[in-house]
Amino acid sequence: MPEFLKLTPPDEALRQLLENVSVNLQAEEIETVSALGRVTFSPVIAPYPLPSFPRSTVDGYAVRAADTFGASEAIPAYLALIGEAPMGAATTLSLSKGQCVLIHTGGMLPEGSDAVVMVEYTQAITPDSRKRSATNVLSQEVEIYRPVAPGENTLEVGEDVHAGQEVIAAGARLRPAEIGGLMALGIIRLPVARRPQLGILSSGDEVISPEEDLSPGKVRDANSYSLSALVKEAGGSARLYGIVSDQEQALFAAALQALTECDLLVITAGSSASSRDLTAQVINRLGTPGVLVHGVNVRPGKPTILAVCDGKVVIGLPGNPVSALVIASLFVVPVVEKLLGLRRFHPRPTVVARLGLNLPSQSGRDDWVAVRLVPEAGGFLAEPVFGKSNSIFTLVRADGLVRIPSNATGLSAEEIVEVVLL
Amino acid sequence: MPEFLKLTPPDEALRQLLENVSVNLQAEEIETVSALGRVTFSPVIAPYPLPSFPRSTVDGYAVRAADTFGASEAIPAYLALIGEAPMGAATTLSLSKGQCVLIHTGGMLPEGSDAVVMVEYTQAITPDSRKRSATNVLSQEVEIYRPVAPGENTLEVGEDVHAGQEVIAAGARLRPAEIGGLMALGIIRLPVARRPQLGILSSGDEVISPEEDLSPGKVRDANSYSLSALVKEAGGSARLYGIVSDQEQALFAAALQALTECDLLVITAGSSASSRDLTAQVINRLGTPGVLVHGVNVRPGKPTILAVCDGKVVIGLPGNPVSALVIASLFVVPVVEKLLGLRRFHPRPTVVARLGLNLPSQSGRDDWVAVRLVPEAGGFLAEPVFGKSNSIFTLVRADGLVRIPSNATGLSAEEIVEVVLL
Repeated sequence: MPEFLKLTPPDEALRQLLENVSVNLQAEEIETVSALGRVTFSPVIAPYPLPSFPRSTVDGYAVRAADTFGASEAIPAYLALIGEAPMGAATTLSLSKGQCVLIHTGGMLPEGSDAVVMVEYTQAITPDSRKRSATNVLSQEVEIYRPVAPGENTLEVGEDVHAGQEVIAAGARLRPAEIGGLMALGIIRLPVARRPQLGILSSGDEVISPEEDLSPGKVRDANSYSLSALVKEAGGSARLYGIVSDQEQALFAAALQALTECDLLVITAGSSASSRDLTAQVINRLGTPGVLVHGVNVRPGKPTILAVCDGKVVIGLPGNPVSALVIASLFVVPVVEKLLGLRRFHPRPTVVARLGLNLPSQSGRDDWVAVRLVPEAGGFLAEPVFGKSNSIFTLVRADGLVRIPSNATGLSAEEIVEVVLL
Repeated sequence: MPEFLKLTPPDEALRQLLENVSVNLQAEEIETVSALGRVTFSPVIAPYPLPSFPRSTVDGYAVRAADTFGASEAIPAYLALIGEAPMGAATTLSLSKGQCVLIHTGGMLPEGSDAVVMVEYTQAITPDSRKRSATNVLSQEVEIYRPVAPGENTLEVGEDVHAGQEVIAAGARLRPAEIGGLMALGIIRLPVARRPQLGILSSGDEVISPEEDLSPGKVRDANSYSLSALVKEAGGSARLYGIVSDQEQALFAAALQALTECDLLVITAGSSASSRDLTAQVINRLGTPGVLVHGVNVRPGKPTILAVCDGKVVIGLPGNPVSALVIASLFVVPVVEKLLGLRRFHPRPTVVARLGLNLPSQSGRDDWVAVRLVPEAGGFLAEPVFGKSNSIFTLVRADGLVRIPSNATGLSAEEIVEVVLL
């Protein structure tokens, strides 16, 4: 007879798993240009302030703000133009009362100036003829039509980032913005968390490697490869330990070796109940406390095994490729993220959509339903993907998954749902 | 005086850009295990059906459905057990009327059977004593308590995928599910679209390489690296052509070389208006039709230049690192996706959140506001990230961007918004 599983709610199951895992963070130093997607090992501290010199944020004239107070179109302030601030170099110019300097966005403010008047609110004039000419440096005087406050249109030294400031926390995933920020600070190498290595072992007498010739009754291993890809996306790496037949001693020996060499282990069972039971027996021999959860209240993926063996996570995944991928998203990815030291919560990317059909579900169980997104005016329509649930091509045809929570008996057509992207 | 830009709405600007670009798809054959994130060059056709043999989807007994009709708990059907179907091999057993075979999930149906009764609805018995024993193959008879229809709890050959079926379209991005699906079909190599190469050229007399020592008035180049990372995420590759001073001939020569060697070119201008104007002049010399759009009605990023020169896209990005990254997401990424031949629409990952503050905006312009997501009961709170808009660390502190559409004068606190993840 099949085992009767005591089902644990998925949130509770994940909590138990994360509570029991030991995290042993290790750093490796890499080049910033190769660090996209990696996770900071330690906080990144700004070695110097940004900006590192007082800058103009507009094109215009650097002034002493007090010289512009009261200026208007009717009664402009007149300032003597003493030169132009060069881009990319310090200026030797220094402002006295009643003077101004032509400056460009990003240019360094000259000594004595404390604000910049935008060029739109000025007119350069030649003092002899009072003939107006646009931003002509040869002109000797500038009319100012609007007052500026001290600090207006400028950035002070350290206004973005001050020296010694933590600019990126430890445990942060590096996105394009962080890569740019590191380079802006001249940080061209940095320590990141070593990628956690996932060992993957397939069991099941019917499973063969994709390279092998197919014979009657055999199926090619899809799970090892979809899981490797998923773990790679999450920031880990995967090592394949091949396919082991459903014999306890062989499976135990392979599992022990894989667990010794890796940071966590996944065993994808064959599809029969006996193959799954064997997996649980083997896992319990790998270390303590062993199996924490055997059976999760989620569909697909009910017969999942979650274990911690001497501090390392071991997960027994159902052989069904859809269940294996859904369950790995729910349990393997969060463990990899914990092992990476990822500290910021990590919202799963979703898309909001209008549900196309009623989706009935059994209360008390989380259901994940594969849907395809169809663009429509103002958003997306989410259409459930039909097909036997144990075909990987059900997921290939889908854009994402919709969760029917355990406290609901289904979702209604026209409801607005969040689709977790695959 | 600064140029007065004729601003184009962002949707219209993107349409013009995509309409004018020439796409010249090229394939490269790679291993499926390395194909995560790549885009299929041609449709993937199933070389054989899945499943490739008739399979059981449950643990139980393979039967002739007709033999179970009318069976109930009160009046079970009795079937003679003639053996067990092995996992991973064809069985030599063949069913006649009144017979059954023990079978496991994924096992191959024996000749003559057309359905499987789940083990839960059966009882194996020993005919002499009628003593009940669980799934004991030595028993000679099985009581069946429920009828099954022909095809029930089985998968026919080709029920998931038939031979010759297109299982993955051309122009599809390969996710973990596709990697698994390809391996399930034994497809261990496949042609994918070559990565479009983006050339990146920085201009601006104030810009230096991150490796160089900082001197007064200089800023380190952040944009080349944040853009490289963004393009890598989108499936392209980037090649850096260094920093060129704001001199027309030098910039033109560097841009022409980069455009010749790459599939598209981005020039990040210095931050001054004169540097941006120079970029537009240079782009117009690179080919026809040249600049299509100079000025986009979006903030940040208004002074963006969009051009197509002899079929290749050239984009002049503002020097401000926030504008550069936002505008690259809006324009460079869609071009890279078009050059990849990506056919399926590609929903941008978002998270739904409650807006924490009023966000005023100017009507007639798309505003993108950086927000940080704070988990709260039932979802996320989106808090605008304050700080000068031209600091890359504004984006480092943010989780995503909220769009205030051009037909709105702002968004109200408590509104539910979609946050596009950075």
